[in-house]
This record gives sequence, structure tokens and C-alpha cells, in this order.
Amino acid sequence: MTRILGIDPGSQRTGVGIIDCDAGGRTTHVFHTPLVLLDAESFPLRLKLLLDGLGEIIEKYRPDEVAIEKVFMARNPDSALKLGQARGAAMCAAVMRDLPVHEYAAKEIKLATVGKGGADKVQVQHMIGVMLNLHGKIQADAADALAVAITHAHVRATAARIGVSAKQVWSRK
Amino acid sequence: MTRILGIDPGSQRTGVGIIDCDAGGRTTHVFHTPLVLLDAESFPLRLKLLLDGLGEIIEKYRPDEVAIEKVFMARNPDSALKLGQARGAAMCAAVMRDLPVHEYAAKEIKLATVGKGGADKVQVQHMIGVMLNLHGKIQADAADALAVAITHAHVRATAARIGVSAKQVWSRK
Repeated sequence: MTRILGIDPGSQRTGVGIIDCDAGGRTTHVFHTPLVLLDAESFPLRLKLLLDGLGEIIEKYRPDEVAIEKVFMARNPDSALKLGQARGAAMCAAVMRDLPVHEYAAKEIKLATVGKGGADKVQVQHMIGVMLNLHGKIQADAADALAVAITHAHVRATAARIGVSAKQVWSRK
Repeated sequence: MTRILGIDPGSQRTGVGIIDCDAGGRTTHVFHTPLVLLDAESFPLRLKLLLDGLGEIIEKYRPDEVAIEKVFMARNPDSALKLGQARGAAMCAAVMRDLPVHEYAAKEIKLATVGKGGADKVQVQHMIGVMLNLHGKIQADAADALAVAITHAHVRATAARIGVSAKQVWSRK
């Protein structure tokens, strides 16, 4: 059993989702939450909230691997910079604990969850609920975090099935 | 005496510069180096190099405050994102040790070092050498890091002189 932490980074809200997956790619929901960063007094302190918040979750749930959404092209350089900073802080929370980090593009996530690279966010969120047997509406960022975790679980399982070490698959990415 | 760590973040090379400054704003050179991040196998590991490298320097030199260059508008969203991630990791190294982080725009740094907001990089690097009594050429990123540290030293001293707490000055930024 492998525990995967999915992260959907954002400078205002970062989604966190944790699942367990077995060798066959079957997934079980463990935890999800949005980390709300807006209360911090300054941008550096917002990053601290993110780093500490993720750190606590990692210490508590002890994931084996981390999957993070490759950020879509931001609207402009300024928002790309802010998003990049949040993403950098999220990756730091993982790498400082020596957790391997895998990145997936939005299209890969849509393919893995809905089966169509052109699926919309609502479809992805709906499928996450179905796949993880969750009832009720999930907060959007947390759902996106679960989606990237599921994507990683599927890539792992496929890699195992075709007899390639997962590491080889990822290093080609 | 206050010890200031200046950081010029970059995803390939991050400049680091440390100075001491007294209440009058007089500055003394302590240390500078570029952290070269290109050897890492993946982008997340590059951030780990940055986080660990800065962490070691902070543990060794024990700065009191951190000054970081506000990133210029990157050429495009993709490079802004990469730069943002490096900047996020650099800020994490500081905030996880509860060091206050102050941000300065390129224009403020040029004003504080050369006296002209429109000065070019070469002039800034030259003035850093003069102000800190350094001999020989300094690596460009390290020089930029020393420049942002000097800028912070001047802002601190000015704030003290006009009787405003430095915190008030910064919180208005």
C-alpha cells in the first residue's frame, strides 16, 4: 500500500488530498482539506502558513510520495510569479522531508480521472467523488488535489503493469 | 549590530550575500556566494538544493533579518513561474526559521546603492565593491544579493533616524 499526497498549489488557497493505493491502482480516500492562506499578514507569512500547514499534514499522515499539479499558464507574469512562489513552498514541504515529488499537467489529470483530456473541472470533481466513494460536495481545491493524487496512483499502477520501474516512467516526463 | 542576509533568487543560480550593519547604517561585508542549482536532477530537487544551501548558510551565519529582491517582471509566464518557485523556496528557508523577510524592488536597490533608480547592473555591482571595501570582481548574483542587503540596511537606518519603527515603514510597503 502506498500513501499519496496530492497538492493543488495556489497563493490564496492550496488544496490537499491524501489517498492510499494498492499495487493494482485501487484507491481509498484518506483525507482532504483546503489550506486557506488569506489570513497571513504578508506574502512571506502566507508561504509560512503553507509550509507549516503542509508540514503538519505530512507529519500526521506520513505519505510515501507526493503528486502536484503542473501549473497551467497563468494569465500574466505577476500571477504566475505568485503561483510559482506558492508552488515552490509546497514542493519545499515535500523535499525537505525527502519525499519524491511528481508533477502532472492538467490534461494528464483530466485523462486519468474523466478519460478525456478536454474534460472540465466540474466533471473531474464529480468523478473524484465517485472514484473515492465520497458523499456531498468537496471543496474545489481539495478535489483538485485528490485528482492529482489519483492520477499519480494510476501512473504508478500502469508502470508496474508494463514492468517498467515507475522511476523510469517519471524520469522521461 | 544587525546581521542581514540578502538573497537574489533565481532558478538556475541564487545569489547570497551577508552584511553586518550598525544603528547608523554603516555596513561591513561578512560573506557572499552564488548557489548554483543546475546540477540537480529535477526541478523539485533544485528547490531542495536551494532550501538546504540557504539553510546551511543561515545556520552558520545566523542573520537577524532577510532582504530579498522583488522580482522584475519576467519575460513570460513560464519563466515567471520558475522564478517564483525559486523565490518561494528562498523565502521558505527564512520563514521556517522565523526570520523576518523584507522585499525590495530593483528600483529601490539602485537608488540605495548608486543613488539613481535608473542605474544599470554594472554600476550597482561596482558600488557594492566600493561600499563594502571588496577587491576584485564579485559574481553577479552574489553582488545583487549584497545590494539588496545594503538596501535593507539603509532603510532600517533611515527608519531609526526619523523615529518610525522599522516595522511601520515596512508594513506600508
